[in-house]
Amino acid sequence: MKWRYKMKNIPVVMIIFGGSGDLAHRKLYPALFNLYEQGLIHDNFAVIGTARRPWSHEYLRGQVSDAIHETHTEVDENDVKDFTSHFYYQSHDVTNVEHYVTLKELAQELDDRYSAQGNRLFYMAMAPRFFGTIATHIDDQHLTGSGFNRIVVEKPFGRDLKSAEELNKQITASFSENEIFRIDHYLGKEMIQNILPMRFTNPLIKNIWNKGNLKNIQVTFAERLGVEARGEYYETSGALRDMVQNHIFQIITLLAMPEPENISSEAIHKAKQELLESLIIPNAEQVKKDFVRGQYAGSDTTFAYKKEPKVNPNSLTETYVAGKVKFERGPIADVPIYFRTGKKFKEKKNRIDIVLKHINTPYGQAYSNNITIEIDPKSRIFITINGKKISEEGIRRENLDYTFSKSELAEVPDGYECLLHDVFVNDSTNFTHWSELKRYWMFIDAIEDAWQKENEAGNPDIVQYAPYRMGPTESNHIFESPTEHWIYE
Amino acid sequence: MKWRYKMKNIPVVMIIFGGSGDLAHRKLYPALFNLYEQGLIHDNFAVIGTARRPWSHEYLRGQVSDAIHETHTEVDENDVKDFTSHFYYQSHDVTNVEHYVTLKELAQELDDRYSAQGNRLFYMAMAPRFFGTIATHIDDQHLTGSGFNRIVVEKPFGRDLKSAEELNKQITASFSENEIFRIDHYLGKEMIQNILPMRFTNPLIKNIWNKGNLKNIQVTFAERLGVEARGEYYETSGALRDMVQNHIFQIITLLAMPEPENISSEAIHKAKQELLESLIIPNAEQVKKDFVRGQYAGSDTTFAYKKEPKVNPNSLTETYVAGKVKFERGPIADVPIYFRTGKKFKEKKNRIDIVLKHINTPYGQAYSNNITIEIDPKSRIFITINGKKISEEGIRRENLDYTFSKSELAEVPDGYECLLHDVFVNDSTNFTHWSELKRYWMFIDAIEDAWQKENEAGNPDIVQYAPYRMGPTESNHIFESPTEHWIYE
Repeated sequence: MKWRYKMKNIPVVMIIFGGSGDLAHRKLYPALFNLYEQGLIHDNFAVIGTARRPWSHEYLRGQVSDAIHETHTEVDENDVKDFTSHFYYQSHDVTNVEHYVTLKELAQELDDRYSAQGNRLFYMAMAPRFFGTIATHIDDQHLTGSGFNRIVVEKPFGRDLKSAEELNKQITASFSENEIFRIDHYLGKEMIQNILPMRFTNPLIKNIWNKGNLKNIQVTFAERLGVEARGEYYETSGALRDMVQNHIFQIITLLAMPEPENISSEAIHKAKQELLESLIIPNAEQVKKDFVRGQYAGSDTTFAYKKEPKVNPNSLTETYVAGKVKFERGPIADVPIYFRTGKKFKEKKNRIDIVLKHINTPYGQAYSNNITIEIDPKSRIFITINGKKISEEGIRRENLDYTFSKSELAEVPDGYECLLHDVFVNDSTNFTHWSELKRYWMFIDAIEDAWQKENEAGNPDIVQYAPYRMGPTESNHIFESPTEHWIYE
Repeated sequence: MKWRYKMKNIPVVMIIFGGSGDLAHRKLYPALFNLYEQGLIHDNFAVIGTARRPWSHEYLRGQVSDAIHETHTEVDENDVKDFTSHFYYQSHDVTNVEHYVTLKELAQELDDRYSAQGNRLFYMAMAPRFFGTIATHIDDQHLTGSGFNRIVVEKPFGRDLKSAEELNKQITASFSENEIFRIDHYLGKEMIQNILPMRFTNPLIKNIWNKGNLKNIQVTFAERLGVEARGEYYETSGALRDMVQNHIFQIITLLAMPEPENISSEAIHKAKQELLESLIIPNAEQVKKDFVRGQYAGSDTTFAYKKEPKVNPNSLTETYVAGKVKFERGPIADVPIYFRTGKKFKEKKNRIDIVLKHINTPYGQAYSNNITIEIDPKSRIFITINGKKISEEGIRRENLDYTFSKSELAEVPDGYECLLHDVFVNDSTNFTHWSELKRYWMFIDAIEDAWQKENEAGNPDIVQYAPYRMGPTESNHIFESPTEHWIYE
């Protein structure tokens, strides 16, 4: 990305906790290589991969080279060789304090060797349960450098407000808020980054972005897959924590926030916070009315969730959730924002439907105007308007469509490349601020608590839904008015 | 068209003045056949073709059959045979009073034979200079029947207000205003008929249809061809009379009229008239400032207009005109509507661009939002909005496009079929009311008069423009503000 590379050759020693892991291999190494190719990091950087396995520097370099070849069709082998030569491996038990001392020494040595100017970038790419421990030891063993210090934290950041606060406390012992980059790769996606420009540069759209014109907004994150091999993890999470607390709330925030004064990271976070202060946290009664949780049932050919490997046969974990979000302030205060997400939908589909209110027309009943942003599987924006039926009386729908072409898609960088770039250049626009995360958890906790109470009372309101359809039909009951319905069906 | 054929087997004797002509052959006969195939006219109709040539009934029937085969890929020959058997030819000199007596007798005879219930439909498909004579003789020889009587008049209806008033007087001797169908085939086009439904059923569009949001509207009717063999006719017309007085003003009316109370023909004409009463007629000074007339120049490979066959070498006839229209009332009162039309543009393109005002954005300068209706060569609606540049800072344009598919286009009836249907079922929605036409001529006369005075003063402000480009660059001077420009370039 041309603009991303205004800065060149940023000096830094980067430490990746979880250097032998899947995320590092599939996402971080290829992204770092692209940033290197564009010169953002080039001569004065080193990367330390750490993990429990006893790898050598050479073995890690081989792994990084593999990761690059797996994701690129054409590479300059000399570049790969030079790039991987900046990689070092440190076997590391995150609970062993002495290992942090070794890590610190290696970091300092590489800082000298590569003239990294005391800059440190820590990346937590391990299982979330270790985040707190790592943060604590970074602090007590003084791993931070004399230059800039930044830490990237993968999701989930806690599993409720309490644990998130605890983790945040551990991290803020060494890092100030503006040094913490809570990453959500959805915010690196082109279609998501397009939401604010679309809202604030188009009078056609800005004009109708208010309670007077909008009937509702619908956010759908549908997966076709079940939990597959991830049953054990999923039992500890559920759809609400897995998808809503992060991706869906980030998107809702972008849709509902007021116009920022400018597009600096500060102004954008300020506008988000202003909005989130007015987020309505539902009480138990509202949860009962406005939220639906479900579990996918089985069929002749597929397992029910409760029959999946490593899933409790009496599990009360939701594989589907639909609900309603509202704000008291902001441009769309009081407009219902409905979301639904989960497993075993009829197809993978991530999309946002902005639904306009009906108007009286001299032509009788017309369809609603909708603005739809499709994130997956296509990158696409379309506006549905009414037109004259061809050679018949009455009104029909016309879709005005903009689908990203193949060549445009080829230009779109991976979310991780985009977000790692932002970390290097210290732009926290597309990361989650603590004050935002806190509000998200308060909302999630309110629902989890209400559900927990139902469960404990032996009366869990969790529906079974047929696989490979559109989730439970009960989700049709959360709409405020009988004229509302899911646009995508 | 399904809805059009709610009525069946309408009894009528139709008399076409100009039955041997090009329009009848290319448009009317094929359209009548389609209406017959759908049953709108079927058993109780007869068509009399009249013209000077001494054709027989059989010869006309052969011509009609040819016309059908030339425009249809597949036809049922039995249908063609039955259909053409309803056709009769009457050699006719429109200035010869006695011929009207013969015509009346034939009409009465066919009325009896086909039980046409005294219904008469007259169609003026001849050179316009005969319209008045024909109308006068229809009146003095009492050609109207005892059932319904309707007359279809091709354009141009007069060549200025005075001659139009004269013609109207001649026609209204036998026909009341609601029996007169002043036809403009552009109003039969699907994209034109879509303008009102689009404006009044879509909150997204209706919302911005006002002075607050619209910067201007641009109507472009560009032809690539020169005058070809039509130099003689064109010398008597010019671009203003040829295109603006009818097509362009009809479209402007649809764009600027207030919302009708309902979609009856009466309500729509009422809304149009309300608008047109507030049409601002330019004075000579405004004509000088807001209008540009031009003639195409020659090139190595093409003739200049003045060198075309049958064109006066000192001709002051315009082959190009651009100008500004404004209304004092209506939803877009005071919004400038710019138009341009003429010969030897770089390509054939008929389109309407609705240009929204810029808004201040936190992203700096953005492009204008435009809604574009393309009528030719494609049937297409697109909305141009701003989006984030891919992998770069800044804003780019995204076109949200709806182009009629091949199968949709196949469903679209020809304008003549559509409008002839309307005449048969007595729906005058898509025809020009006298009060509308009068206002159009007042506007055109104001410009012609101003130009005439310039010509007489020996100071004609008519520019020569390069062929196969976008007309004279002088058209850029008619915009009210320096931030306006032609969207289509």
